[in-house]
Amino acid sequence: MTVTRSERIPEFVDVLAAAARIAPHAHVTPVLRSRTLDALAGAELFFKCENFQRVGAFKFRGACNAVWALSDIDAAHGVVTHSSGNHGAALALAAKTRGIPAHVVVPEGAVKSKLAAIEAYGAQLYFCAPNMAAREAMAAQVQASTGPTLVHPFTDPLVIAGQGTAALELANEIDGLAAVVTPIGGGGLIGGTAIAVSGCAKGTRIFAAEPEGADEAWQSLQRGVRVTEHRPETVCDGLRGTLGEINFDLLRHYGVEILRVSDAETLAAQRLIGERMKIIVEPSSAIVLAAVLRYRDRFAGQRVGLVVTGGNVE
Amino acid sequence: MTVTRSERIPEFVDVLAAAARIAPHAHVTPVLRSRTLDALAGAELFFKCENFQRVGAFKFRGACNAVWALSDIDAAHGVVTHSSGNHGAALALAAKTRGIPAHVVVPEGAVKSKLAAIEAYGAQLYFCAPNMAAREAMAAQVQASTGPTLVHPFTDPLVIAGQGTAALELANEIDGLAAVVTPIGGGGLIGGTAIAVSGCAKGTRIFAAEPEGADEAWQSLQRGVRVTEHRPETVCDGLRGTLGEINFDLLRHYGVEILRVSDAETLAAQRLIGERMKIIVEPSSAIVLAAVLRYRDRFAGQRVGLVVTGGNVE
Repeated sequence: MTVTRSERIPEFVDVLAAAARIAPHAHVTPVLRSRTLDALAGAELFFKCENFQRVGAFKFRGACNAVWALSDIDAAHGVVTHSSGNHGAALALAAKTRGIPAHVVVPEGAVKSKLAAIEAYGAQLYFCAPNMAAREAMAAQVQASTGPTLVHPFTDPLVIAGQGTAALELANEIDGLAAVVTPIGGGGLIGGTAIAVSGCAKGTRIFAAEPEGADEAWQSLQRGVRVTEHRPETVCDGLRGTLGEINFDLLRHYGVEILRVSDAETLAAQRLIGERMKIIVEPSSAIVLAAVLRYRDRFAGQRVGLVVTGGNVE
Repeated sequence: MTVTRSERIPEFVDVLAAAARIAPHAHVTPVLRSRTLDALAGAELFFKCENFQRVGAFKFRGACNAVWALSDIDAAHGVVTHSSGNHGAALALAAKTRGIPAHVVVPEGAVKSKLAAIEAYGAQLYFCAPNMAAREAMAAQVQASTGPTLVHPFTDPLVIAGQGTAALELANEIDGLAAVVTPIGGGGLIGGTAIAVSGCAKGTRIFAAEPEGADEAWQSLQRGVRVTEHRPETVCDGLRGTLGEINFDLLRHYGVEILRVSDAETLAAQRLIGERMKIIVEPSSAIVLAAVLRYRDRFAGQRVGLVVTGGNVE
């Protein structure tokens, strides 16, 4: 089952199916604007506020789509993932909406408040050493024992399709977007966004904002081969994941452009969003505004959609 | 002119007129909800988010109404007020939308970032000693020199009517509200809210949340006479003003109930709103949630509207 799910490249129809599937559970988040930020950017900015999504992040969309796409038989065995961040909480809540077990593998030393959130949604926690090999091994072990379906944070096609529903809502609500910008970490959100935007707003350019200190997606596109060796150094804790293979393929297929941003620019953008829009966003979210301000000549006078991914700060 | 404006008690028709007058300039702010906060309160809470209003606070509504109600001849002379807070910035921006001068009297020692905001909207600043007599004297002096119309922060009937438009939008959007709660300082917002809610949602109870350390409205209602001697001690810097006379009359006329809240409860509520709703609110705003949580038996199982007044924090 897991292998089959992972092999299929998601398409626009999968995003549409995801939108229908998660509609009873996920919020249609508001699109906010700011005159001051428009003036600063010299463009019309439309902020899709996924910080208002359930669990405080877009991750609920993908997790919810994966959980509700399971057959009843598979669902009864629950789901498992490895994530100490928003995906863990998102999968826990998604499983709770269906009344099935969730198992979440987390690295030792993970932030306690995030673990408490995952547990509060009813998931079982498993601790492992803080590296990807240990996380995957522990998840495989849990899978072998009770048979839950693995829902990978960003390579699962159903997760990718689910993440695309945020941009789908945005493009359906706002006409004439010349560009859409999302952050990029492992590449689940930008993958789904590229599929969604290409399907419903042809001609709209697609950008991913990436921290300079974790720019393996940019390097991968430069070299034409996926870079997997990287040591991320960035305040954007949601963007430290290594670009997945399917995600790399989607970047190339849809011609996504990467915009690199420094942490200082991201933190300045986070402050601007707080002051001017009165919303709480993670640095990993603020990076989209930082990108638009740094590369302002690319967006001058245009309507630009920005996916504000989450608001879970300490 | 000024005397005439100040003598009339505003009514529902004035709130409707204000709504029409400010529509081209003010935002219709969103109403947000939170499952977690509903569960905590044991009620259905509807947050009218004036922190998303222009200048980051509901104060823009009243200021805008006062500015756009002026005759062309009066408008040419501009407007004047005394306020170091949101009303000063609101009046400055309102004047800017009409292209007329704004004069704002501020106490020496006022927070620099707030003064910078007022100046950024194009108003002229005047400094005076930090007490009400000095503020009023300086405003009168400015008025005598170039003839601008005084727009008092909370006793001006046009300001009161303008502030009522937030609750008007809320009550029109959400059916079946059993209660509406706003903060109370000088009483402009609660006055306008009482008029608006009584006009369009009869039977809805009206509450004002007041800091224990600045509870002169509560004392005034207890004694049946307006208390003007008070030394406010509260973190709610927007709620330190002394209840106005017209505002006291409105409280009694509409049977507004005062709910007193401690600063500790307000700060806990501010944190809850940040964590759960991902929005930035002032302590003076968070007090409405604190009141609903402290007096939860008054609201059990009901639909409750809360006016979140602003998001201008340091």
